[in-house]
Parts: sequence; structure tokens; C-alpha cells
Amino acid sequence: MKHIETRRSIRKYADKDVDEALLQRLLAQASRTQTMGNLQLYSVIVTRSEEMKKRLAPLHFNQPMVTQAPVVLTFVADFHRTTQWALHRNAEPGYDNLLSFFNACEDALLMCQTFCNLAEEAGLGLCFLGTTIYQPQGIIDTLQLPRLTFPVATITLGWPAEEPALSDRLSTEAFVHNETYRPVTAETIDRDYASKEALPENQEFVRINGKETLAQVFTDIRYTRKDNEYMSEIFMECLKKQGFIK
Amino acid sequence: MKHIETRRSIRKYADKDVDEALLQRLLAQASRTQTMGNLQLYSVIVTRSEEMKKRLAPLHFNQPMVTQAPVVLTFVADFHRTTQWALHRNAEPGYDNLLSFFNACEDALLMCQTFCNLAEEAGLGLCFLGTTIYQPQGIIDTLQLPRLTFPVATITLGWPAEEPALSDRLSTEAFVHNETYRPVTAETIDRDYASKEALPENQEFVRINGKETLAQVFTDIRYTRKDNEYMSEIFMECLKKQGFIK
Repeated sequence: MKHIETRRSIRKYADKDVDEALLQRLLAQASRTQTMGNLQLYSVIVTRSEEMKKRLAPLHFNQPMVTQAPVVLTFVADFHRTTQWALHRNAEPGYDNLLSFFNACEDALLMCQTFCNLAEEAGLGLCFLGTTIYQPQGIIDTLQLPRLTFPVATITLGWPAEEPALSDRLSTEAFVHNETYRPVTAETIDRDYASKEALPENQEFVRINGKETLAQVFTDIRYTRKDNEYMSEIFMECLKKQGFIK
Repeated sequence: MKHIETRRSIRKYADKDVDEALLQRLLAQASRTQTMGNLQLYSVIVTRSEEMKKRLAPLHFNQPMVTQAPVVLTFVADFHRTTQWALHRNAEPGYDNLLSFFNACEDALLMCQTFCNLAEEAGLGLCFLGTTIYQPQGIIDTLQLPRLTFPVATITLGWPAEEPALSDRLSTEAFVHNETYRPVTAETIDRDYASKEALPENQEFVRINGKETLAQVFTDIRYTRKDNEYMSEIFMECLKKQGFIK
């Protein structure tokens, strides 16, 4: 996993397909990831058709990777298959609740990330789309996801046709705590965020958005209270519709 | 990542410490994992002290790995640090909602899994404890986790002192779908679960529990409706207490 030191999200892909056998091998390897009771509470939907990519694109705010990547993978938290298994085996499943939703999310996200690590090690490039949970109902309808499933992650996948600059990271002292959570103070914030705030690209980001601080770009433009609260309501509605909350 | 093919959860550890420099290196490498807006919405609490392990153990149903492993890591969905950063930078954060909780969960779980992949590649053994979300309030109190944080994963970590048998996995045709979700039917269930149900250890599992089918062991004993519904209520209460739901 030496590639991890130099990994970057890839948004431009070469005009070259991702071989189906390779994809299947990577998915099989990723399924070695630990899951709850070894139940593998996930499904992966493979999108290759142009038509389906076009239908998914607006659900990811028309980010161009969705239609340009040879493959789009949607990782789904899935208690439907296990529930059906139980029903066909004279067992009474009780997985229509919030805890079960979260159990399935964990399985799906952990397996997704092993897949990402494997794919990047194999030389593929990918971009993780956090938009998956912003308009889940549209994705559910498009991919025909049944009750007790929920899309939790999407990646666009292909052979890299760009090599963007490495993005910055907080140093470990910002996020690693010994024994108990170390209080966040004005001093730790200055120490942990100074280098991020000093980056020329971030200063430019503040300038072009007409803001005073980098944090304001996040709170006022990228991830606003209004958007978050609106999408939280949609998220809760969708959890109910998919059967995870009564 | 050739190790992935033969990975197993490790519950017994050699009497040998995990070097702090190695741990820090693996955590730094894992932080290359993509996150929302590169905000790294997670923290990791490192538990090495015997006293803290003893306090955590009952919160994980006294699984012996918690006190026996040299290191216990708790991965925390963390919007507290980012919120404090915003408050100290004249910005108005709006991350006290369900969507933000889920954003932070995604970041924490993806980073956790990259850490697992890296640690196992380095020859370490680990066990992922799904129990983290069963009694979250106790973990929050013990690790002194502030508002807008939530523990989502725990791993026990050390040098392996066992080599358990490889566990089975569903074949990819059970969980990979082309273009749309393929309906689960009696036929696909028989195809996908037959080999799991036929395993001698699973048949023994059914027998000693006095059940008719393997699925009943899961629904009636391991993950029951009663437990799931009780823990779902606790989970929701805890989300409110941590400030993610009003």
C-alpha cells in the first residue's frame, strides 16, 4: 500500500475501459473485509451503461465524473437480502430499525474503502462522491433499491488521465488523542489549522469567495446550515420510507 | 495488499507492544483517505493504559480482546473540532444535524478501514468491535467525548498469537448487481447461501443452539428484534444528547 502516501482523488479518466474480470476480482477481494456476524450487509451496484450514468448524474449535482468515468459503483447498506434469507428459512428478522441501518452502513462503508485501497493499488483512479446521501431517494428509484436498503457511497472509477497536486492533511496531533479526548482550544486550533489556512490555494479560495476566513467558505458556501438542515429532513424521510425508522 | 486474501480477525495477541512510532506512521498514512471537503471529520482515541482498557471492556460486553490487546483504538465521528475551528474564525457552523452526523461517520469509518488495511499489511492483527454503537454513552463518558462527536468503531490491535481458519464469504454474484438491484428470490437465496449453510461449523452452530436453520441463530439469538429495537432507542437518545438531532 505504498500508493497511499501519494493517493489523490482522480476526476479525469483515460478513454480505456475497466476490465470486468479485474473489477470482479477487486470486489471479491474487498469482500474479505470484516462485517457484522459475517453477514456482509451490503450490495454494490455497477453502472456501465451511458443511459444509467446520465440518470445518476443529476443526483450527484452533475459532477462530470459520473458520465465520464467508465464505471460508477454505488455501495448500498443492505439488510434486505439478509431479511429475505431469514424469511425463506423460517426465521423472524427484526432489522427494520435504526441500529440495523447503522450496522449495514458500517459494513458497506468499510468494504467500500477496502475496495478503494485495492483499486488505487492496482493503478486505477477514483473519486468518492459524498453526494450519495444528499438525494438518496432519486438514487433508490434509479437503481431500484428495495426496502431495507440505502445508498451510502458512490465512486467513479477509471484509469487516471490527470495527476493533481496532493492535498494537505492535518498532522496526527490534530486528530489523535491519548486515553481521553483532549479539549479543543484556541491554541490547538491555531496549531492544527495554521498550515491549511496559509496554503496559497486556500487563501485564493477565501479571496474569490469574498470571505474573511477559510472556515467561512465552508460554513457560508460549501456546507451551510440551511442545506444541511434541509438534507437532514430528506435523509430522515428516506430512512422511514426504506423501512429503517417507524 | 496481497494479505487481503488471507486476512482474518485476530483475537489473541503476542506479549509484545505496538511501537508508538509505527502506530503514528500508520495513523498518518490512513489520514490520506478522502474525506468531506478534506475536513477530516474524525478523531482517534488511543487506549494503552490498563485502567482505561478495564473501563472500556464492559462497554464491549467484556470481550477479552479489549483488556488483552496492547492497543485499543476508538474511531470517533467528529464535527466538534471543525465546529470549534469555525467558531474561532468568525464563522457560523451549522453541523448539529443528522446529515452532518452521517458525514462525519463516513469520514471516520473510511479512515478506520484504511488503517485496518495498513495495519494488517504491516503484519499486525486486529479485531473490529461492532459493539461500539451498542452502548455509546458509556464510551462517550469514559473517553470524555464532547458534543458533536460520536464513537463509531473500535479495533483491538496487536501482534497475532493465533491463526484462525479463514471465514467464508458470499460469492460476488450474491452482492454485485448490474445496473439495477436484482430481485432477491427463493432461487438466488438457495444459490447464494447454500455453501454457508452447509459448512460443518455452521451446522454445529445450529445444532448446539437447538435451532432449525442458520438464519434462526441470527434472528433468535445473535441479533434479535428485541435487542435491536432497544439499542435503536439508545442510539437515538445518544444522537440527541451529542447534539446531532433536536
